[in-house]
Amino acid sequence: MSSFAPESGGQRATSSDKYAKYDKQDAEFFPDIGKIAFRSNAGPTETLVFKHYNPTEVVMGRSMEEWLRFSVCFWHTFRGTGADPFGFPTLIRPWDDGTNSMENAKRRLRAAFEFFSKLGIKYWTFHDRDIAPERETLEETNKDLDEITDLALELQKATGVKLLWATSNLFANPRYMNGAASNPDAHIFAYAGAQVKKCLEVAKKLGAENFVFWGGREGYHTLLNTDILAEQNHLASFFKMAAAYKKKIGFTGTLLIEPKPKEPAKHQYDYDAMTVIAFLKHYGLEKEYKLNIEPNHTTLAGHGYEHDIVMASVFGMLGSIDSNTGSPDLGWDTDQFPMDIKNATLVMKTVIEQGGIQPGGLNFDCKVRRESTDLKDMYIAHIGAMDTFARGLKNASKLIQDGLLKNLVKERYSSYTAGIGKKIEDGTATLEDLEQYILEKGNPHAVSGQQEHCESILNFYI
Amino acid sequence: MSSFAPESGGQRATSSDKYAKYDKQDAEFFPDIGKIAFRSNAGPTETLVFKHYNPTEVVMGRSMEEWLRFSVCFWHTFRGTGADPFGFPTLIRPWDDGTNSMENAKRRLRAAFEFFSKLGIKYWTFHDRDIAPERETLEETNKDLDEITDLALELQKATGVKLLWATSNLFANPRYMNGAASNPDAHIFAYAGAQVKKCLEVAKKLGAENFVFWGGREGYHTLLNTDILAEQNHLASFFKMAAAYKKKIGFTGTLLIEPKPKEPAKHQYDYDAMTVIAFLKHYGLEKEYKLNIEPNHTTLAGHGYEHDIVMASVFGMLGSIDSNTGSPDLGWDTDQFPMDIKNATLVMKTVIEQGGIQPGGLNFDCKVRRESTDLKDMYIAHIGAMDTFARGLKNASKLIQDGLLKNLVKERYSSYTAGIGKKIEDGTATLEDLEQYILEKGNPHAVSGQQEHCESILNFYI
Amino acid sequence: MSSFAPESGGQRATSSDKYAKYDKQDAEFFPDIGKIAFRSNAGPTETLVFKHYNPTEVVMGRSMEEWLRFSVCFWHTFRGTGADPFGFPTLIRPWDDGTNSMENAKRRLRAAFEFFSKLGIKYWTFHDRDIAPERETLEETNKDLDEITDLALELQKATGVKLLWATSNLFANPRYMNGAASNPDAHIFAYAGAQVKKCLEVAKKLGAENFVFWGGREGYHTLLNTDILAEQNHLASFFKMAAAYKKKIGFTGTLLIEPKPKEPAKHQYDYDAMTVIAFLKHYGLEKEYKLNIEPNHTTLAGHGYEHDIVMASVFGMLGSIDSNTGSPDLGWDTDQFPMDIKNATLVMKTVIEQGGIQPGGLNFDCKVRRESTDLKDMYIAHIGAMDTFARGLKNASKLIQDGLLKNLVKERYSSYTAGIGKKIEDGTATLEDLEQYILEKGNPHAVSGQQEHCESILNFYI
Amino acid sequence: MSSFAPESGGQRATSSDKYAKYDKQDAEFFPDIGKIAFRSNAGPTETLVFKHYNPTEVVMGRSMEEWLRFSVCFWHTFRGTGADPFGFPTLIRPWDDGTNSMENAKRRLRAAFEFFSKLGIKYWTFHDRDIAPERETLEETNKDLDEITDLALELQKATGVKLLWATSNLFANPRYMNGAASNPDAHIFAYAGAQVKKCLEVAKKLGAENFVFWGGREGYHTLLNTDILAEQNHLASFFKMAAAYKKKIGFTGTLLIEPKPKEPAKHQYDYDAMTVIAFLKHYGLEKEYKLNIEPNHTTLAGHGYEHDIVMASVFGMLGSIDSNTGSPDLGWDTDQFPMDIKNATLVMKTVIEQGGIQPGGLNFDCKVRRESTDLKDMYIAHIGAMDTFARGLKNASKLIQDGLLKNLVKERYSSYTAGIGKKIEDGTATLEDLEQYILEKGNPHAVSGQQEHCESILNFYI
Repeated sequence: MSSFAPESGGQRATSSDKYAKYDKQDAEFFPDIGKIAFRSNAGPTETLVFKHYNPTEVVMGRSMEEWLRFSVCFWHTFRGTGADPFGFPTLIRPWDDGTNSMENAKRRLRAAFEFFSKLGIKYWTFHDRDIAPERETLEETNKDLDEITDLALELQKATGVKLLWATSNLFANPRYMNGAASNPDAHIFAYAGAQVKKCLEVAKKLGAENFVFWGGREGYHTLLNTDILAEQNHLASFFKMAAAYKKKIGFTGTLLIEPKPKEPAKHQYDYDAMTVIAFLKHYGLEKEYKLNIEPNHTTLAGHGYEHDIVMASVFGMLGSIDSNTGSPDLGWDTDQFPMDIKNATLVMKTVIEQGGIQPGGLNFDCKVRRESTDLKDMYIAHIGAMDTFARGLKNASKLIQDGLLKNLVKERYSSYTAGIGKKIEDGTATLEDLEQYILEKGNPHAVSGQQEHCESILNFYI
Repeated sequence: MSSFAPESGGQRATSSDKYAKYDKQDAEFFPDIGKIAFRSNAGPTETLVFKHYNPTEVVMGRSMEEWLRFSVCFWHTFRGTGADPFGFPTLIRPWDDGTNSMENAKRRLRAAFEFFSKLGIKYWTFHDRDIAPERETLEETNKDLDEITDLALELQKATGVKLLWATSNLFANPRYMNGAASNPDAHIFAYAGAQVKKCLEVAKKLGAENFVFWGGREGYHTLLNTDILAEQNHLASFFKMAAAYKKKIGFTGTLLIEPKPKEPAKHQYDYDAMTVIAFLKHYGLEKEYKLNIEPNHTTLAGHGYEHDIVMASVFGMLGSIDSNTGSPDLGWDTDQFPMDIKNATLVMKTVIEQGGIQPGGLNFDCKVRRESTDLKDMYIAHIGAMDTFARGLKNASKLIQDGLLKNLVKERYSSYTAGIGKKIEDGTATLEDLEQYILEKGNPHAVSGQQEHCESILNFYI
Repeated sequence: MSSFAPESGGQRATSSDKYAKYDKQDAEFFPDIGKIAFRSNAGPTETLVFKHYNPTEVVMGRSMEEWLRFSVCFWHTFRGTGADPFGFPTLIRPWDDGTNSMENAKRRLRAAFEFFSKLGIKYWTFHDRDIAPERETLEETNKDLDEITDLALELQKATGVKLLWATSNLFANPRYMNGAASNPDAHIFAYAGAQVKKCLEVAKKLGAENFVFWGGREGYHTLLNTDILAEQNHLASFFKMAAAYKKKIGFTGTLLIEPKPKEPAKHQYDYDAMTVIAFLKHYGLEKEYKLNIEPNHTTLAGHGYEHDIVMASVFGMLGSIDSNTGSPDLGWDTDQFPMDIKNATLVMKTVIEQGGIQPGGLNFDCKVRRESTDLKDMYIAHIGAMDTFARGLKNASKLIQDGLLKNLVKERYSSYTAGIGKKIEDGTATLEDLEQYILEKGNPHAVSGQQEHCESILNFYI
Repeated sequence: MSSFAPESGGQRATSSDKYAKYDKQDAEFFPDIGKIAFRSNAGPTETLVFKHYNPTEVVMGRSMEEWLRFSVCFWHTFRGTGADPFGFPTLIRPWDDGTNSMENAKRRLRAAFEFFSKLGIKYWTFHDRDIAPERETLEETNKDLDEITDLALELQKATGVKLLWATSNLFANPRYMNGAASNPDAHIFAYAGAQVKKCLEVAKKLGAENFVFWGGREGYHTLLNTDILAEQNHLASFFKMAAAYKKKIGFTGTLLIEPKPKEPAKHQYDYDAMTVIAFLKHYGLEKEYKLNIEPNHTTLAGHGYEHDIVMASVFGMLGSIDSNTGSPDLGWDTDQFPMDIKNATLVMKTVIEQGGIQPGGLNFDCKVRRESTDLKDMYIAHIGAMDTFARGLKNASKLIQDGLLKNLVKERYSSYTAGIGKKIEDGTATLEDLEQYILEKGNPHAVSGQQEHCESILNFYI
C-alpha cells in the first residue's frame, strides 16, 4: 500500500452534464471493454487479452486463481489522479466529477466493481478514506462510510468479488503530518484509534480476510524534535489496542503491518521486514501480527527485490504481498506494475514453498504511469502484471517440481545432519567441543558456492 | 570494525638490512614525531597538534578522556597496506618487512604502542589474526598468538594503554568465504567456534573491556543456494555458545555485535541496529549482547549518520562506537576519519544523554586514504578526528546544559502526562475510549514541528 | 528550481470573510513580525534574528549582500501547500483563499514583497504560472500575466527588490506530461515555445538578471516508446529559438539551464553539469547558456554536495546557484533549507574564487517542511539558511586570504611549469618524448595526497 | 574493464612440483572439460552445454557469432584471485604458482587460449600488466612484454582467436595512486605516456581491433587538494598524444574511452557516456574516440541498465560493450556475469538497430564469484552469459522484425514530419511562429504514452 492521492479537483471542469450517462445504476463505465479473455496464441500488441493467466488452469494441485489471489487496490486505480509533486492531475476519469459527494463516491465504486469483474479479479483492497469522503466530524464521516460500505457489500455479493483487506488512511489528513499513533499529541493518537476502530468494524462487515497497517507518517523528519522511545511505546500501545478490539468484535482476519523504509517520513519505524519483526518481538506482539510485503519498499530499503518476502516467510511472518515494482535507479516509490518475469518467478517460488499466500494475496498496489491516460491502460497494466505472475507461477512450479535446486541446497547443508553438525543443530555443542573437533579433524576446506551454476539453472525455467 | 588487509607482500623489497634499526626493543619507530601536544592557539597547517582535545579538561563533570574513550584499531592502522580492488599496496611502513614472521609481528606491535603513546590514546582494538600470523594448524596458530599476547600484555603494562575490545577475524581466510557461523559446512562452523574460544581467552588475559563480533561473511550472495533459516539458527547457536563460554571462563567484558548491511556479502544478516535487535530478541539473546555501531555502516544501510547510534541507545543496546565516516555519494565502506563537527556533535549528544559510552569507547575504525602515504599522515588523521570529537563533545555539552532542545521536546509530548494521554501511556486505554474521547472533544489540530527552528538552535552550538 | 505545487484547494474553507483584512493594499500580512534585525549576541532560541548575516559588513572588499545575492523563490514559499504524494496541504496561509482569482494572485504577491522586505532580501524568482493563473486560452493567460507583472513592477520599485530570474513552468500542466520541448507532439512543443516567448518578454519588463530553463519533463520514462535523438534535436532547436528571441527583444539577462538527473522523469536529459555542457557543446550552444546549479540535484546525481558547482565553475559555466540541500539518505528532491556550515563554506569558496556569482545569486529553492506550519517558520528557515551562508562566506574568505590550501595545491602541480611538464601543458609533447623522458629519468615515485591534512586545515576555518 | 587483481601470492604454497605437468607446451589445463557443445534440449543442470548459443545459426542475415562477437577478458578470468577488501585469494588455479616469473606468465597464457578454444570464443582482451610482469625498469618490462606477446601472437595464429582490444593498466601500480594522465606530477604523466606508447605498439602487433582507456584513477578523492581544470587539460593532452601516435604507427583499431562514475576514485572524470562525450567535444576529440560501455558502470552512475548503451549509440559513439552486470542493491562494481534475459534483449535491440557492434564486441568483463572456486565454474559462468545473450539476440531480432514497437514510436513522433513540426525539425521555426501557431490552433492535448502496453509487447518477446 502506499499513496493516497490528494484531491486536486481545482483544474478540471465540473459540468454535471457529462456524468448524466452514469446516473442509472446499471450503466457501463467501460463500454468499449468486455470481459477479458484468455487466448494463449494472441499476438504481441493484443494486450487486452490474457496469454498466460488462465484462472482455472491447475498448477501443482491448485488453480492459478487460488495460488495467485490477485487483488486490485482501490486507491491508485480509482482515486489516483496522476498528480505528482511537479504536476497536476492527468488521469481524468469520465465517471469522476472531482467532488466529495456521495454520488461521486458511489459512481467510483460501481466503476471499480465493473473493472474487477471484467478483469476477472476476485479481490479488492481499500483505505477507509478513499471509498468514502471525510466530513467535518467523525460521526458524519462514519455515517457516510456506513452508507458506502452498504453499497460495497451489495456489489461484493452481486459480483462475487471479496475484500482481501481494508486499512485506515492515517497519513493523508494534515492532522497526521507528525504521525498518527506516534504523534506527539495524544489527541491525534486518539483520533487515529477512533478511525481504526471504525475501520475494523467495516472490515468485519465486509468479510475482509486481512487488515493492514501502513505507517507512512510513523517515523521522524529530524531527531532534534523527536522522542523515539516514547513514539515506539505509543505505537506498540496502538497495536495492542487494535489486536484487543479485533478479538472483542470477533473479526477473524489477519492483522498485517507493511514495512517501508522512508517516504513520506525521512525515517519510517517499520523500515523493513526484520525491523518490524524486532518491534513485534520487543513488545510481545508477534503472535498478533504478520507482514504485508511490498517489493518496491524492499528495494528502497536497499535489499534485493524478493528479499523481504523470503525473510518474512522464513520467520513465519509472511501474510500478504503488495505485488508491484520500482525502478532500481530511482530513490522513491514508483508503484509500477510488476512486469519482470524473473522477479515474479522468485516471488512465486517462496509462495509455493510456504504452501500458498492465503489468506493473503497478491495485491496490485500499482498505478498506471501518469502518462498512461487512456481507460484501457488500466486494463492493459493489470493484464500485463497478471500474465507476468502467471508465468512466474508456472516457472516456479516447474523449478520446484524438478527439485534440482532444492536438492543442491539440501546437499550443501548435509553436514548438519550428523556428528558435530547435529550437535550444533541441537544446540548441545560448546566452544570446547568445537575446538576439540578441530584439533582432531584439522582444517576444513571451503567448497564452491556454485552461484553461476544456480543462476543458469534458474534461467532454464524462465 | 571492518576490513582486514590481505597480505600483499609480493611487490615490496625484502632486504633485511632496512629493519636493522628496529632490532632493539627500545628503538623508535616514529623518530621524527614526539608526544602530541595540546595547543589551542596553533595555526591551520599545524596539524600535528591538538587544538581542541585536551584530555584532562573537565566537561560536565568528567574529563574529555573519560567521555571520549578513544581507541586505535590495529588492523587498519598497522596492517592496512593501501591495497584496493584496483591497486597494489601503497602504504609501505619501514618496520614491516611484509613477512609473516613473529619478529615482524612483534615489531608492528611495538610500533603500535609507540603510536598509541605518542598520540595519548588510552585504548586499542585488534582482530586475532592481525596481531599474530595464522599457521598451518590451529595449535601452531594459537601458540604464536600466546607469544604475541604476552608481548601485548607487557606493552599494555608499560604504557598504560588498555584493550577496548578484541575480535576474531572470521572472514579473511578462504575457509570463511561462505560464512563462518552461517557456513553450510559444520566443519567450518567448528573452526570458527574454536577460534572464538581462543580469542575470548586472549581477551580475558589482556583485560579487554568488550568483545566484538562482526559477521562480514554471515549473509548470502544468492538466495538460490541458501537456507536462510538454517543459517540464522546456526548463527544463534554460535552466539549462545560464546555467551556460555564467556561466563565459564569469567570474562567480564561486554559482548557486542556490529551491524553492517552488506559488503563483502551481498546481504549481511546483521543489517542494522534494529535487525540485530530483532535477531537477539527472536533467539532470546538480548541480555547477553549489545551493539557496536559504526556510522559508515549505518549510512550504507540507508539511514542518517547518527541514526543507529540513537536507535541502539533508545533500546538500551548501545555498547560501543566505531567512530568513522563514509562519503554519502559512495556505496561502499570507505572507513574515513570522521572530520565533520556537526555529526560528532550529534553522536556526543547521544553519548552524554545515555550517561557515557563506557565500558565501550570511540574506536577509530578508520584508515588513512591510500594516497596518504607519509608516516605523519597516520598521526594527522587521528589528531584531526580526535579534535573533531572534542569539538563535538564541547558543543553537545553546551547544548545539553542549556536544555533548550530538551525542553522543546518535553513540551511537545506533554499531552501524554495526563488524561487520555496518560491512559495511552499506561496501556489502559482501548479503542472505544479513544473513540469516545474524539466524540466528546472533536477534531485535533496539528501544530508545527519547527524543524528549521531546531536546526537553527543546533547551529548555534556548532 | 523544482516543484510547482499543484492547486489542491478542495479541502479548505473558502469563506471570503477571512480575507477582508487584506483588501487594502497597505495591509500587513505578517503583523507579528517586523524587519529582521542583525544581533550577533542573540541566544540559541532567538531564531528570528540574524546572528551572522550583516548585509553591509565588508568581506574581501565587498559587502555580504553583494557576495551572497540571496533570493527568495516565489513557488515554494508562496505557492507551496505542503501537499506531498501521501498527504493533503498543511500550509494554510491566511491571505490565500485557494482560488485562481486575480485578487488572490495579487494578495499573494503583496504578501511576498512584504516578506522579502522584512527579511531584507534583495532578489526574488518565479515561474510564470505561479504568479498568475493559467486560463482557457493563451491570450487570456497572457493578459492576466501582464496585469500581475504590472503589479510586480510596481512592488519592485516600491521595495527595491529585484528579479534574479524568471522561468517558464513547462511541467505542471498535463499537456507537458510527455515533455515540453522534447514532446513527441509538435503542437505541444509549439505551446511551450509560445509560453517561453511571453515569459522572456516578462523577464525583460521586470529587469530580470537571468532566465532559467529547468526541464523536469524533458527526459523519458521508458526507452521503449522514445526516440532519444529526435527529442535531443528538438530540445536543441528550442534553446536556439529562445537565444535568438532573447537577442531580438534586447533582453540582456543570462540564459541558464538547470541540471537534474531524475524526478519527475525517470531520466532527465539535463542529468548533471557535465551532461548539460556536453549537450551545449554538441549543439553549439555553449556561448548562449550557462548553468544554474542546485546542490540537491547534484547529490541525487550521485555526486558530492559542491561537485557540480565546482565543475561548472571550472568550465566557466557557473551562472547561478539554487542554494538548498537534500538529505543524503533520501532518493528524492527534498529542497530543504541549507543549514550545513561546512557545505556553505565549500560553496562560497568556489564563488569567491571565481570572483562572485553575479549576475546570478543564491536563490533559496527551498521549502519549509510540511510540518513547519507557522508563518514564522517561513522566516526562521530563511534566516537560518542566510546565517549559514554568512558563516560560509566568512569561513571561506579567511581560508582564501590565508592562502594555505591554495599554496599546497600550487606546489602539488608545480612540475608542469618547466621541462617535460611544460611541454605537456603546452601540448607539444609526444608519446615518444614521454618514453624518452622515462628512459632517461627512470621511475617516478608517488607522494602523499595529504587528504586528512587538508581536511584538518579546512576544519580550522569552520 | 575494471579491476586488476593485485598480486597476493604470500599465502599460497610455491612448491614447483605441482606445476611439472604443465611444462610441456601441449599440456592440457582443463583435462576434464572438452569443447563446449551446443545441445538445445539439454537439461537444467547441464550447465556445461550451450542451449541457445549456436555460433553458426543465422539471425537477420548474420551468424550469432558475428552479431555477438563475444570476448573473454584475461584480467578477471586468468589473473583474478578472488581476493576482496575483506578476504584473501580463494581462486587457486593449478597452473599459476603465484610468482611473477615469465614461465608462470606463459602458462597462464596457454591456459587462457585453451579456455578460449574450448569455449568457442573468438576474441580476447587484456591489460599490458596482466599478461606480462612489471620489472624494475621500463626497458625490462617492455622486453618481457615483447616476449609474451610473441607467444600471444603464436597462440592467436594457432587457435584463430583474435584480439578485441588491449589496454594499459594505469591504475594498479602505486605510482598511479593520484592518477595517471591527471596526476599532479608530470613525471608520472610521462610514465603513463610511455606505457601507452608501448601498448599501442603491442596492439598493432597483435592486430587489435580496438584500444581502450579506462581511467580508474583519473578523478579526485577530495577537491581540497585538486586542480580540476589542470587535470582535465592534461587528460585531454594525453588523449591527443595517443591519437597522434596511433596514426603515426598506422594502428587502425578504434580508440575507446570507458566511462565509470566512481570506484576506485571518489569521483571519476569519465562519469558516464554523456560526460565523456562532453569532454571529447570540449577538447575537439570526438572524431578520434568512441565509447566502451559497461552496464555495471552505468547502473553505478544512477542510470537504467541499458541507458548508456542507448545514449552512446544515439550520438554515434557506441564502440564496444563490456557485457556484465551489477546487483542493483549494491553500490560497488561487482562485475557479475550477465544472466538477465530482459536486459540482454534490450542491449541486443540497440546493437541490431545500429547495424552491429563491430569492430567492437561483447567483452565479458566479469568475474566468477569468489565463492565459485571450481575450474568448471569459469566455463559455467561464461556459458550461462553467452546463452543469455543468445536469447537476447533471438528475442530482439523477433521484436525488430515484427516492427511493432518501431511503428508505435514512428507514429508517436509523426507530427514533426509536416507543418509546424517540420519547421521545428528543420530549425527554421521561431518563437513568434510558435506563438502564432497556438493563437490559431488553440491548446494541444496530451495523449497516452502507453508505457504498460509497450512493456507488455516487450514481454511477448521474452
